[in-house]
Amino acid sequence: MNKHLLTTLVAVGSAAFGSYHYGIYKERQKHSDILPLKQAELLHKHSQKPGFPLFASVSAAVPATTPTAQDVNLTATPSRVSEIMKFGFPSLDSVRSYSDFVLSYDRRNRVPYWVFEHLTAESIAKNEAVDRSKCEFRPDDSIHPYFQSQNSDYRRSGFDRGHMAAAGNHKRHQKHCDDTFYLTNMAPQVGQGFNRDSWERLEYYTRTLTKTYPNVYVCTGPLYLPRQEDDGKKYVKYQVIGNNNVAVPTHFYKIIVGETSDNRLEMEAYVMPNQVISDDTPLTVFQVPPESVERAAGLLFFDRINKKQLTKINGKKV
Amino acid sequence: MNKHLLTTLVAVGSAAFGSYHYGIYKERQKHSDILPLKQAELLHKHSQKPGFPLFASVSAAVPATTPTAQDVNLTATPSRVSEIMKFGFPSLDSVRSYSDFVLSYDRRNRVPYWVFEHLTAESIAKNEAVDRSKCEFRPDDSIHPYFQSQNSDYRRSGFDRGHMAAAGNHKRHQKHCDDTFYLTNMAPQVGQGFNRDSWERLEYYTRTLTKTYPNVYVCTGPLYLPRQEDDGKKYVKYQVIGNNNVAVPTHFYKIIVGETSDNRLEMEAYVMPNQVISDDTPLTVFQVPPESVERAAGLLFFDRINKKQLTKINGKKV
Repeated sequence: MNKHLLTTLVAVGSAAFGSYHYGIYKERQKHSDILPLKQAELLHKHSQKPGFPLFASVSAAVPATTPTAQDVNLTATPSRVSEIMKFGFPSLDSVRSYSDFVLSYDRRNRVPYWVFEHLTAESIAKNEAVDRSKCEFRPDDSIHPYFQSQNSDYRRSGFDRGHMAAAGNHKRHQKHCDDTFYLTNMAPQVGQGFNRDSWERLEYYTRTLTKTYPNVYVCTGPLYLPRQEDDGKKYVKYQVIGNNNVAVPTHFYKIIVGETSDNRLEMEAYVMPNQVISDDTPLTVFQVPPESVERAAGLLFFDRINKKQLTKINGKKV
Repeated sequence: MNKHLLTTLVAVGSAAFGSYHYGIYKERQKHSDILPLKQAELLHKHSQKPGFPLFASVSAAVPATTPTAQDVNLTATPSRVSEIMKFGFPSLDSVRSYSDFVLSYDRRNRVPYWVFEHLTAESIAKNEAVDRSKCEFRPDDSIHPYFQSQNSDYRRSGFDRGHMAAAGNHKRHQKHCDDTFYLTNMAPQVGQGFNRDSWERLEYYTRTLTKTYPNVYVCTGPLYLPRQEDDGKKYVKYQVIGNNNVAVPTHFYKIIVGETSDNRLEMEAYVMPNQVISDDTPLTVFQVPPESVERAAGLLFFDRINKKQLTKINGKKV
């Protein structure tokens, strides 16, 4: 039935482009050995919504809502952004600042490149005024419609809308929690056995670090790692879901920096596969050298750290 | 033998990380059902060169060399960049300006996101002073070493180092031609039957447009298109080559805008699969709606065009 729906959409999409486009389409079918038809369909399916760019191609970090006098601490103030991004931006593509976290959005894959948070004991403390059940998953209209993911992309995909900035990390205000439900902060995650289990264990562990460090900085995001196949060659392969082809990452990373009261910095780096993981697997199994994540992600994390301050990596003195 | 070399490098890489990392590595092997060992190796292989970021994470558009008084027209002057990028930047990630073209570099895939050129009859005219055989493929050291592609990645891969900004488009000075040989301007292309044949036909066709239009603007880059597999799900799959895992795109796009002497703009958009294509396939077969490329690439092309000026798309009046 899904397949039938897809075919219908493709047909409608093609028809909408009129006879000229149809002519090209027929011509392409003749040459379907060259541009495989299924790929052509996937490409053309998007012609459902023709039209030209409405948005500027890149926006600087801006608050999602306009601050008012009473409400200023609920938006991404420049000072809060500076606090969160104290150790540098991993990249500057499609950066969005929300009330309590900052991200860079991957418009090709419709998931974030990275999401940056700053946690303290206070920001994660239990707060009766914040009700997670009031939060709603929703697209961020500051992203051009071509590149947004939608709730419909995730529906019946078999994947959770997995938070990169965890809702439980942002409990000072209802709006802080609400903002983590923007779909720009999501990536498709295996639910049972990963998002709701071992990945959540890692998120919980990250929060416990606020007992050790007055300031905890966290950068979280997806990876698309190659595998060697039987032909001896390496391939990157990942599923895409929904009409918007939202990428299902093969792995997720989390880089954590704890800042001690005497300004020493301690770093931990984790990579977990986006699959069912046994609950008794220790988190340390997933520790990796931070630079291996940088190479795989194409990003530089905590670039502005003074190396003299960095005293530990993955529990080992450096 | 290649395989043997790879294994050796992995072993050396692991050893270099010392006994602590070795401990984690052994632990990981026990849990190899969770993080498949081959993936773990691919991730850890990069630990050959441990160390922290040396470069700023993002550079603004800067000339690759410092201009001198005599040499200023051989570098990317602000006015030349403005000319090339007249109709807007498709994105702003890792932008590099060379003497006669501008690109944005995909640090995760080690190939460009997009490469922008401005062609005129003069810039492509035969010039005895420019000798292509003197040009050498070389990495651009303004890209952090973690994210560079190297000649060794392409060697024995079976793929050509395919120019995005074609060498034949930049004949005013030897340096203009030289610059097109930076590996930042390359992506792995099937050689015989594609790069040296049908793709070159498209490049040649683009140059002929300078007879029709006083100004021709060209944006070229890679695509990674999903295919539906037998399980009914859509997957993106592409090979990666060399130690740096340089992505082999599934397709390439070229968006061309011709500006007439009375300021009308005419656009053509092409997508070709990175595979052997019969020489008698007409180029029009590969024409696609421009917005389908925008959606697939995650980019907005010619965003600053005044829609009233745009009078034709793919030969059809709009």
